[in-house]
Amino acid sequence: MARTASVDLPEASRQPTETQAKIITVAAELFAKQGYHATGVAELGRAVGLGAGALYHHIGSKEELLLTIVRAHLEDMHAFGTGVLAGAGTAVWQLHELARNHMRLVAHRRTELLVMMRELDSLTGQRRADMLALRDAVEDIWNEVVRRGIAAGELADVDPMFIKVVLGALNYSLVWFQPEGPETPEQMADRILDMVLKTP
Amino acid sequence: MARTASVDLPEASRQPTETQAKIITVAAELFAKQGYHATGVAELGRAVGLGAGALYHHIGSKEELLLTIVRAHLEDMHAFGTGVLAGAGTAVWQLHELARNHMRLVAHRRTELLVMMRELDSLTGQRRADMLALRDAVEDIWNEVVRRGIAAGELADVDPMFIKVVLGALNYSLVWFQPEGPETPEQMADRILDMVLKTP
Repeated sequence: MARTASVDLPEASRQPTETQAKIITVAAELFAKQGYHATGVAELGRAVGLGAGALYHHIGSKEELLLTIVRAHLEDMHAFGTGVLAGAGTAVWQLHELARNHMRLVAHRRTELLVMMRELDSLTGQRRADMLALRDAVEDIWNEVVRRGIAAGELADVDPMFIKVVLGALNYSLVWFQPEGPETPEQMADRILDMVLKTP
Repeated sequence: MARTASVDLPEASRQPTETQAKIITVAAELFAKQGYHATGVAELGRAVGLGAGALYHHIGSKEELLLTIVRAHLEDMHAFGTGVLAGAGTAVWQLHELARNHMRLVAHRRTELLVMMRELDSLTGQRRADMLALRDAVEDIWNEVVRRGIAAGELADVDPMFIKVVLGALNYSLVWFQPEGPETPEQMADRILDMVLKTP
């Protein structure tokens, strides 16, 4: 887990073209619905109205497409977390910010998060290694906030495992959280965190 | 969520024959590795050394096979939970028993649990409805323990959401728990529960 300190993060994804964005959206839906391996390139082409040749021109390969979906998601989490970590605020406040952002993704980018969680292991070779490193880097931001909070005496009694518990609870909320209410993603995040985080 | 009180649980699975047991094991591994939809019956037959006809004779259909895997897992959890609920012990002790059992499954029946979590939604119609009801029935056992604990004054301050948090943390441990140690599944379950459960 400590290996992310020196990890080379993959090159940031470029802004997709309009056609690429459409392909990504449709692919995420198909991957979430029936799985990555079961989704054929021909089927994907039909869903977006492109032949296989044109599809490959826009996306490279099916695995490249999965990588794009997973990477965009992890990069967003990483960028948000880096901003929180660089900013002011107590460790408790920073943890709440991270949790709120995670719950907003559960509420508003459910499909992409589902694909990330279920299909990250479908990536192979360097792509898989890069995404696992990026996922670790996201988790390391949580760890760093906790380390600082403990050093500052703010989180003296926190079990380091608590990050695993919170991330598990946040991810599992994909199964049960109702984006339409009554609680907002931010309220739900605060409630989950307050339950696990025993602050003085 | 309260709908499980009157649910008709599906007929308990019969003991599989030796051939069926082998097919189930191989199928669970393939479903976990590459996904249910991407696993063909022909491929499955080759992996167990049976032609498609013989395979169908033993298992009925691919969906029936997925149902068998998911159902066995949920039935085990349900049976264990029913036993805990019917037994003696405080609510806190019963919660620890449920959590320990869940972590034992994470440690020792990782493949089946992964299939259950990822592929339950691949079931269709009545099969899917039955398994969702069974999953709710398992969760209702946790809820019932908490209800009794609150009624007895033992869990006065517990947020009812805590069950979602604990189940999320336990399920997510599939990603990070090391069955070879240093902590046993039971110790890890206790540690997670103690973190979330603020007992007086």
